[in-house]
Amino acid sequence: MARLKVMQFGLGPIGVRAARLVAVKDTLRLVAAVDVDPNKVGKDVGDLDGGRPIGVQVTDDAAKALDRAQPDVVLHTTSSGFAAVYPQLEAIVSAGASVVSSTEELLFPALKNPELAAKLDKLAREKKAVVLGTGVNPGFVMDTLALLMTAVCYDVKKVTVERRVDASTRRLPLQKKVGAGMTVEQFNELKARKGIGHVGLPESMALIAHGLGWPVDKLEEDLQPMIAPKDIRTEYLEVKKGQVAGIHNTGSITSNGAERISLDLKMYVGAENPGDRVLLESTPPIECRLLGGVAGDFATAAMLVNLAPRVAELAKTDPGLHLMTDIGLPRLVG
Amino acid sequence: MARLKVMQFGLGPIGVRAARLVAVKDTLRLVAAVDVDPNKVGKDVGDLDGGRPIGVQVTDDAAKALDRAQPDVVLHTTSSGFAAVYPQLEAIVSAGASVVSSTEELLFPALKNPELAAKLDKLAREKKAVVLGTGVNPGFVMDTLALLMTAVCYDVKKVTVERRVDASTRRLPLQKKVGAGMTVEQFNELKARKGIGHVGLPESMALIAHGLGWPVDKLEEDLQPMIAPKDIRTEYLEVKKGQVAGIHNTGSITSNGAERISLDLKMYVGAENPGDRVLLESTPPIECRLLGGVAGDFATAAMLVNLAPRVAELAKTDPGLHLMTDIGLPRLVG
Repeated sequence: MARLKVMQFGLGPIGVRAARLVAVKDTLRLVAAVDVDPNKVGKDVGDLDGGRPIGVQVTDDAAKALDRAQPDVVLHTTSSGFAAVYPQLEAIVSAGASVVSSTEELLFPALKNPELAAKLDKLAREKKAVVLGTGVNPGFVMDTLALLMTAVCYDVKKVTVERRVDASTRRLPLQKKVGAGMTVEQFNELKARKGIGHVGLPESMALIAHGLGWPVDKLEEDLQPMIAPKDIRTEYLEVKKGQVAGIHNTGSITSNGAERISLDLKMYVGAENPGDRVLLESTPPIECRLLGGVAGDFATAAMLVNLAPRVAELAKTDPGLHLMTDIGLPRLVG
Repeated sequence: MARLKVMQFGLGPIGVRAARLVAVKDTLRLVAAVDVDPNKVGKDVGDLDGGRPIGVQVTDDAAKALDRAQPDVVLHTTSSGFAAVYPQLEAIVSAGASVVSSTEELLFPALKNPELAAKLDKLAREKKAVVLGTGVNPGFVMDTLALLMTAVCYDVKKVTVERRVDASTRRLPLQKKVGAGMTVEQFNELKARKGIGHVGLPESMALIAHGLGWPVDKLEEDLQPMIAPKDIRTEYLEVKKGQVAGIHNTGSITSNGAERISLDLKMYVGAENPGDRVLLESTPPIECRLLGGVAGDFATAAMLVNLAPRVAELAKTDPGLHLMTDIGLPRLVG
């Protein structure tokens, strides 16, 4: 069986991990790697994490890479906003390649950009390509897993998902991204211009509501800082008592007059008992815990790679914009 | 939207629960109910559990019921063995209806009966029907859930699933079914003629191996009695110290020389800390727990009902014999 040709678009930490994983999989072949960063262009992808060479050089010319390499699937890891990455997705799909993307808003693109989502769906159908947004969060713990859990229920009154990540165990950019070490004023300033906080909670909630056929009366989201109760020192930085330790994102969906979906995400340095929890008020009641949680970066890279063969397969029979609810059972590939 | 027409075939405890659930769902309509038990024939389905009437009378003539009611989907809950229920499935599919069945061996029918599975697949394609075996175990906790967990992994060395059910909290037939109150001699006699033990562990393992593309070198299964360490009294019966309290079923699959799948199922009266656990030796490592476990009867009925609309949908585009790995993301339906 011919190996699936995979191009990596975006070579941040997740993209480099995904590219490495593609390179070691028997069923996949890394055929191109794209990033706009001049410090990365021309280098072997393997140089970017200091590991051994992979044999694929980074280029900043996505169009040329698509044309030359003719990938079956592009793993896309550039940015969080659907509208912002739309031109990239359009270029990929126009070249006839399918996409698995970590763009958070692409988990449920119709929530904020229904027209753009319809346009992309149409283009993908024409070009016989599949577009799918996924990841670990959004994409797995706070939505897909919760949906699967409902399968064994008579009825579900409410879906609650809690995720607590200890940012101390994560890389420095993530610790900074959640505001560790900021003053509350700095945090609030950044929050006011939407410069901080997890992207994807509304999309996770919209996917759950969509999957269960629940009409959305009201969708709410909130962001607050987690305050350090004492001085905390991580491998990379120090957070003084009273400073920001991280983020607390919450969201809810009201359907037919009742709050039926509630998500609670805490990512901060010094978090105790990190882990993920899906709680269903249902018959029978369900409580599912992921002990220690699912580490974001590695797992997101794995999720993208594991879904590459699925979208390639789906492109043959049912091209278009897809959601995590309609792509089969996601699982590891060889 | 027209309600999906559903027929219930088999009116044991799970079948009656499934029929009741169909009757209350907005998107489904119970159009027929079949059972061979003369004590049930002619009664309203609702009489069978002493609840309020449903308005559908039990018949023992499946062929006539299929012909008259023209169901879109049949929920099939009669027996554990695929070969044994084959004539029933053949009759249903020949009538053009799809099937969701709790027949344990139908979770992976090709394991023990590859020719019969191919024959059923061919017939289902011809008749534009879908056949699917599912349930809670097999069908969910020890296979489908474990597979989903692998989606966020780079690689998986080993899949372990443990399920511990406290039979004290279940109905009397189940307590008897696991041998509670038997002597060890009685248990072993029954075991020798395959009259006791959970059906489905090999099928769960085969589904996991299939889903992950792992070749099966060796598939092993074992059954031992759980012995009561002290006198145990349940709502229905008493088990003396030294008597059988229930079953301990184990199974493993060796792939490429290493044990890669291991399932461990204990169902006995007096089980402490009942619950389900999926453990992956993987990158990242995954430990998923279902606290208290998923109660079998209710949840199996729910799973069957929740998958009815999915098989009906799938019948339009991709008829045939399907597995839990290729039917989309199972979830609650309205």
